[in-house]
Amino acid sequence: MLPSRPGINVIYSSGGLPELNSPYLICGFPGSGYVGKMAVDHLIEELHAKHLADIYCTSFPPQVLIRSDGTADLMKNTIFYSKNGGSNISLLLLTGDSQPGNPDSEYLLAEEILDIAAKFNTSHVFTLAAYITGVFVEKPRIFGTATDTDIVTSFGDRNISTMDGGSITGMNGLIIGCAKLRGIGGTCLLGETSGYVVDARASKSILDTLLSIVGVRVDMKNLEQRAKDTEMLIQTIEQQMAGRMGQQQQSSTTNRPSDMGYIS
Amino acid sequence: MLPSRPGINVIYSSGGLPELNSPYLICGFPGSGYVGKMAVDHLIEELHAKHLADIYCTSFPPQVLIRSDGTADLMKNTIFYSKNGGSNISLLLLTGDSQPGNPDSEYLLAEEILDIAAKFNTSHVFTLAAYITGVFVEKPRIFGTATDTDIVTSFGDRNISTMDGGSITGMNGLIIGCAKLRGIGGTCLLGETSGYVVDARASKSILDTLLSIVGVRVDMKNLEQRAKDTEMLIQTIEQQMAGRMGQQQQSSTTNRPSDMGYIS
Amino acid sequence: MLPSRPGINVIYSSGGLPELNSPYLICGFPGSGYVGKMAVDHLIEELHAKHLADIYCTSFPPQVLIRSDGTADLMKNTIFYSKNGGSNISLLLLTGDSQPGNPDSEYLLAEEILDIAAKFNTSHVFTLAAYITGVFVEKPRIFGTATDTDIVTSFGDRNISTMDGGSITGMNGLIIGCAKLRGIGGTCLLGETSGYVVDARASKSILDTLLSIVGVRVDMKNLEQRAKDTEMLIQTIEQQMAGRMGQQQQSSTTNRPSDMGYIS
Amino acid sequence: MLPSRPGINVIYSSGGLPELNSPYLICGFPGSGYVGKMAVDHLIEELHAKHLADIYCTSFPPQVLIRSDGTADLMKNTIFYSKNGGSNISLLLLTGDSQPGNPDSEYLLAEEILDIAAKFNTSHVFTLAAYITGVFVEKPRIFGTATDTDIVTSFGDRNISTMDGGSITGMNGLIIGCAKLRGIGGTCLLGETSGYVVDARASKSILDTLLSIVGVRVDMKNLEQRAKDTEMLIQTIEQQMAGRMGQQQQSSTTNRPSDMGYIS
Repeated sequence: MLPSRPGINVIYSSGGLPELNSPYLICGFPGSGYVGKMAVDHLIEELHAKHLADIYCTSFPPQVLIRSDGTADLMKNTIFYSKNGGSNISLLLLTGDSQPGNPDSEYLLAEEILDIAAKFNTSHVFTLAAYITGVFVEKPRIFGTATDTDIVTSFGDRNISTMDGGSITGMNGLIIGCAKLRGIGGTCLLGETSGYVVDARASKSILDTLLSIVGVRVDMKNLEQRAKDTEMLIQTIEQQMAGRMGQQQQSSTTNRPSDMGYIS
Repeated sequence: MLPSRPGINVIYSSGGLPELNSPYLICGFPGSGYVGKMAVDHLIEELHAKHLADIYCTSFPPQVLIRSDGTADLMKNTIFYSKNGGSNISLLLLTGDSQPGNPDSEYLLAEEILDIAAKFNTSHVFTLAAYITGVFVEKPRIFGTATDTDIVTSFGDRNISTMDGGSITGMNGLIIGCAKLRGIGGTCLLGETSGYVVDARASKSILDTLLSIVGVRVDMKNLEQRAKDTEMLIQTIEQQMAGRMGQQQQSSTTNRPSDMGYIS
Repeated sequence: MLPSRPGINVIYSSGGLPELNSPYLICGFPGSGYVGKMAVDHLIEELHAKHLADIYCTSFPPQVLIRSDGTADLMKNTIFYSKNGGSNISLLLLTGDSQPGNPDSEYLLAEEILDIAAKFNTSHVFTLAAYITGVFVEKPRIFGTATDTDIVTSFGDRNISTMDGGSITGMNGLIIGCAKLRGIGGTCLLGETSGYVVDARASKSILDTLLSIVGVRVDMKNLEQRAKDTEMLIQTIEQQMAGRMGQQQQSSTTNRPSDMGYIS
Repeated sequence: MLPSRPGINVIYSSGGLPELNSPYLICGFPGSGYVGKMAVDHLIEELHAKHLADIYCTSFPPQVLIRSDGTADLMKNTIFYSKNGGSNISLLLLTGDSQPGNPDSEYLLAEEILDIAAKFNTSHVFTLAAYITGVFVEKPRIFGTATDTDIVTSFGDRNISTMDGGSITGMNGLIIGCAKLRGIGGTCLLGETSGYVVDARASKSILDTLLSIVGVRVDMKNLEQRAKDTEMLIQTIEQQMAGRMGQQQQSSTTNRPSDMGYIS
């Protein structure tokens, strides 16, 4: 095994690398609304994905997280894998506690993760992100950008709104940007979310879209339940806000801040 | 001797390394209330611990500290050792002027310190920290987290409150987190303190708990005296605050801010 | 090909390096008013300059930029080259999305760019910058500083105002400063601009001056059109400001903040 | 010549290193009131000191400084040397445009400078700093700290007030702190200054003290003239402040802020 980049430490599960057939890499980094991370964590659970490697980085926040059983662990990213039963489709699933705290380390971690995926001949990478609008909506839209025009062209068929400007900051952007330079395809899907709550509804929307692209099916029951919880939370907030607005200015009936449209 | 990590310079006492029998490493980094550092400094003094090594780091604040005799020294961490007379228990005792000023260097220093302990086959590491509550209490509680569930299980017998969430930031967290990845056990003990004063009372509490775990006894007279000084200082502050409150609102007789519960 | 500096990745166009006869290196980094970048981008377009190399740097902002066709790319600097038809003058033309986010990386990138230019025996480097004054002027002046007194002496003939103090920060300064240490000549030309708008008029002025120095001619039509747009934008702003001033204090008819004179 | 530390580039004058007999290293870094730098620049001028080496550092501010003749140079530190005629005393004199912008680089530069001095068997290092009090005084005091008690002991004879606490931040502290670890003696002399003006009077005081220690004499005329200018500037400021105070509250006749006592 080659040594990792400075400040990055990859610890593989014992027993050697599994054989995977050019798996998709699907990344759910922690970010606004936990949209991406929640979707990937759901996939890991429902697919009974197996542990591949932990990735430690000295630019993660310098702390241990305490679990409910009282034990403490360094912050890390973790890659799981799934051969997905009889089908031909295998997946690498990345989830994590944190993104690195400075630009140089974000680039290094993106390259390190792609090195790991390259061991299995990954040819396409997905990052799942949040599209922050500052408003609550009935049905969250899915936005997308990609490394190649033929991927972008396919967005229309899948009800993905193609972004045509701006930027994707952090690991969700860097992973697909660095992938492109290696000749690996990359797609960033962004679930519309207010940015005010942990948004399982946006998470479910983005996962539905992803699964239809990669051709994998999983039980969505648990995530749907959490999406319903999100919906109720949003309704409660909207009612409270409407109430407060009503007290302040009786003529106003809606409380929709204008679209902020930034990405996280 | 292997070269140290970049930016870290370890200078051992001349005369070769001592023979130590799998010593505990006990760390008292400077932090809120000087709870941990004061406890370890007391141990060093009472055990007549011997100097092992100075650790310099280019991420310590770029300055010299001026001593009362007019001489100046770079900031450093220092490890002492104690064979503790006839007993079988030996200790590595770390005290210091500072923690590094950025996350990457905190991780590096944690690994460097563990490398030093590994030369002596240390199998368990303790870090002594402060649990900041923002209130003055009669009897400071001791909180704890550890690398392994069997350590956590033993907390109850020793009147240690097990933490079940949150994080431990800085060297106190990283040392046990990095230890865990090497298969070395780690415990972080946190003494409850207001965060407003240098708190020798919390320091004494945490040292009592530590000594009962490692099975070492030391004369506590000096630290008890300092703990009494802390107690008087707190009483003075409380009386002044009560006086000021009385002037402001006659009905109020206590001045206890709510529990802030953060760690340092 | 020698490996690049840490954090910098240079990817050359396939097909080997072109043969260039000691080309001038002309740098248009993004900065205030896009004065330099717009001038170099115009040169690249009008000279049909060819792609030489992309330069990636882990201290560029950690993000991908989304293009109008929906595809995303890492931030980068790019060097083009032009042999300029039958004449003897060849050019290296640097344009980019960003400057590095910290001083150390700015120095490293400056050295890397000069290494690339050195492959072609470049003996003189130009950086095109903005001279921010905070005021709108009819005819933007050109300011200059250089590595050698004989270059400075020639400024008078070309209507360039010689700077006699202050500093040039960022890549525009470092490139000529680092060039000087290698025995390569360097000139920084600065176009006067308000700093309030993307200023194609300052861009055209600086390009006129540059072209007269290097002895290259290009069609200026497109940039002249953009300069006219800038002029109209400025007139609109001035009229609005005059209007607002008129409402506030009827006796005031101009709104010229005093010269701020800083460089970017 | 060994390669320099990462980010540091030392360029020696051509013609080989001079032969110097264990010279004192005297450092005048830029800082508050330019107290140290002005003193060393005066020494360099009056001793007709010769250029030894320029030191460039990628953590100096990323900019070029423009000189009055219109030429631009990277920021640097420079070491000059003086054999001082017939006497046995030789000097290394360090002056500079800047100190590095981050702690790690400050440590690295301190070590690099000491490496250069070590080539000539320097056994003692002086740093000249400012002791900021926030008040104007008739006769600035000289404060001192050192690496060894025997140096501190000698302070009394030379009218140097020994510091007995606090810290010296930046290069002035690190140079003597790092020297101590190499077995090289170090003294930091600090000239009392208000911190409000470029203070040639404090500069002259500290230089008088330094010269009496190292046993070198130089013509002080130019620095005395500048010290008189400082005195007049201070008197003007004091009169203006007294005038303003008189308008505000007629009973007040002095305007002395309390001693701030920090070091720079």
